[in-house]
Amino acid sequence: MSDIAREAGVSVPTVSKVLNGHAHVAAGTRRKVERLLAKYQYTRRTKRREGQARLVDLVFNNLDSEWSVEIIRGVEAVAHESGLGTVVSAIHGETTEERRWLENLTARWSDGIILAVTELRPAHEEQIRALGIPMVIIDPVGQPDPQVASVGATNWNGALTATEHLISLGHERIGLIGGRPELQCSRARLDGYRSALRSAGLPVDDGLIAEGDFYAPRGEQAARELLSSPHPPTAIFAGNDQQALGVYRTAERLGMRVPDDLSVVGFDDLPAAGLASPPLTTIRQPVAQMAAQAMRMLLRCLETGSFETRRLELSTELVVRDSTAPPRRH
Amino acid sequence: MSDIAREAGVSVPTVSKVLNGHAHVAAGTRRKVERLLAKYQYTRRTKRREGQARLVDLVFNNLDSEWSVEIIRGVEAVAHESGLGTVVSAIHGETTEERRWLENLTARWSDGIILAVTELRPAHEEQIRALGIPMVIIDPVGQPDPQVASVGATNWNGALTATEHLISLGHERIGLIGGRPELQCSRARLDGYRSALRSAGLPVDDGLIAEGDFYAPRGEQAARELLSSPHPPTAIFAGNDQQALGVYRTAERLGMRVPDDLSVVGFDDLPAAGLASPPLTTIRQPVAQMAAQAMRMLLRCLETGSFETRRLELSTELVVRDSTAPPRRH
Repeated sequence: MSDIAREAGVSVPTVSKVLNGHAHVAAGTRRKVERLLAKYQYTRRTKRREGQARLVDLVFNNLDSEWSVEIIRGVEAVAHESGLGTVVSAIHGETTEERRWLENLTARWSDGIILAVTELRPAHEEQIRALGIPMVIIDPVGQPDPQVASVGATNWNGALTATEHLISLGHERIGLIGGRPELQCSRARLDGYRSALRSAGLPVDDGLIAEGDFYAPRGEQAARELLSSPHPPTAIFAGNDQQALGVYRTAERLGMRVPDDLSVVGFDDLPAAGLASPPLTTIRQPVAQMAAQAMRMLLRCLETGSFETRRLELSTELVVRDSTAPPRRH
Repeated sequence: MSDIAREAGVSVPTVSKVLNGHAHVAAGTRRKVERLLAKYQYTRRTKRREGQARLVDLVFNNLDSEWSVEIIRGVEAVAHESGLGTVVSAIHGETTEERRWLENLTARWSDGIILAVTELRPAHEEQIRALGIPMVIIDPVGQPDPQVASVGATNWNGALTATEHLISLGHERIGLIGGRPELQCSRARLDGYRSALRSAGLPVDDGLIAEGDFYAPRGEQAARELLSSPHPPTAIFAGNDQQALGVYRTAERLGMRVPDDLSVVGFDDLPAAGLASPPLTTIRQPVAQMAAQAMRMLLRCLETGSFETRRLELSTELVVRDSTAPPRRH
């Protein structure tokens, strides 16, 4: 540490402040120190007090999705097994909350970080890199930064399977409600859907594709658009479960019965999917397993000092319930 | 510590082992040391290293309920504000997991414990008391140990409000699906239902009361029993949301429409309630606020050294959606 202080032209307490994430260090000084810490691959972990229990920090943007609990369950199970405590935080997308979390992270000597469906500000990411704390992202939706280790799901395959299931039942006019188009998972699902149609020799009709946002009200509205067209679909792959439940509402309002008049497939397998009437056929994202896998990647990195792989994708699974059936013949 | 060692007739390292939750201390010795620690109100917190970030341990039995995420959100928000990290653990009702958690808890010098819808083994509870770590239980269902500080919800009031809502719509034959009868919350809800009927001058008909278990399949079955009786109810207060969604299924199977042919009210306001078709009228349990309140009780205790109150109940709230309407007149 004194070598780094000398080379940076600052005092040892200043280096220590940077290491501990204190706010009151000039930005230029902080950057200089961080660069040197990275250069000499300074690892703070050696300073850990003997016998102190280890911690991993699991960070969410908001703790509001039904995924959160599955992610916590997956990480906690593996961490607990290895004697690590799982510290859960929500940073609400705010710089000040992010900074405060980072200060607490360093003050509690956390061993590693798992980011759940969120991103840090570049400056903070750099700081973490300088601190030598390994990080893994659990990312079922976004476009992972190839610089950062991440675990995702096979979105393209999932959509392919969903569409193939409807085709195998005899559907030829299959609607799709997409997700937010800027998300990589939305593009992958759209491509999986198209690919299944093409493989089956069915036309890809843009009139059967509606844009969504992954929430129920938009699913409801998109279903209204699709079902009021001159050639309505006999089945809808709703992009995710929330949109599928929106499709249910439109079907009810139009006096259509699921699955007799309309087949519906979701994506995710939220608890609400199994509880719906009729129970929803969907594509299960193995969120808890993805989280467990992220924790295992982190543990391996803590043991060996580096990541073996930067990207892992876990396969999705078709869960057939009661919302899909052969189309009614006219 | 040396005084305690002398009085217990053991070495100082043995006292330290007890304090740190090590497994390899004879049970008799442990009890003797713990009793002395309690007698002298030894507070371990004074040993905390200067400047180390503080932690609170949030413990679940299993991380599988939709409540879990709301509880974590409530605790984390208050803890984060006060600079405490929230360590989340699941102990799966197993002694060995519980013991391991306790060892980790002491090794990470946690400041306090919040138990979420779970209980510890008496020996472990005693150990925590001896360690001087304050504990609060979040308990929306059970019968809280009056020795331990706890936060719950007003179950009796919630059931009263649900039933009054149905009465105000004109229903006179209102069915009830109870919860597990050994849970205090089930008994409180049953009494709230009865009280609303009596206040309105309506008879309490035991033929309209079915026993449940708080899960959807039992709700489905109980609804079948209630609706196939010679004088079926025109509305069902389903005891909780999962059972209410079971009632939906039976209604669908019998060709009855909700709310035209049957009104349904749930309890809890899980995410699935708002997503159901039709969206479910229910009684909202303020789970996140209960969790935040538990954390505030704990913080206050850490500041002042004792709990101001041992039991707090937060009020529930009627959320009117589309599953309730006036009864069809014959």
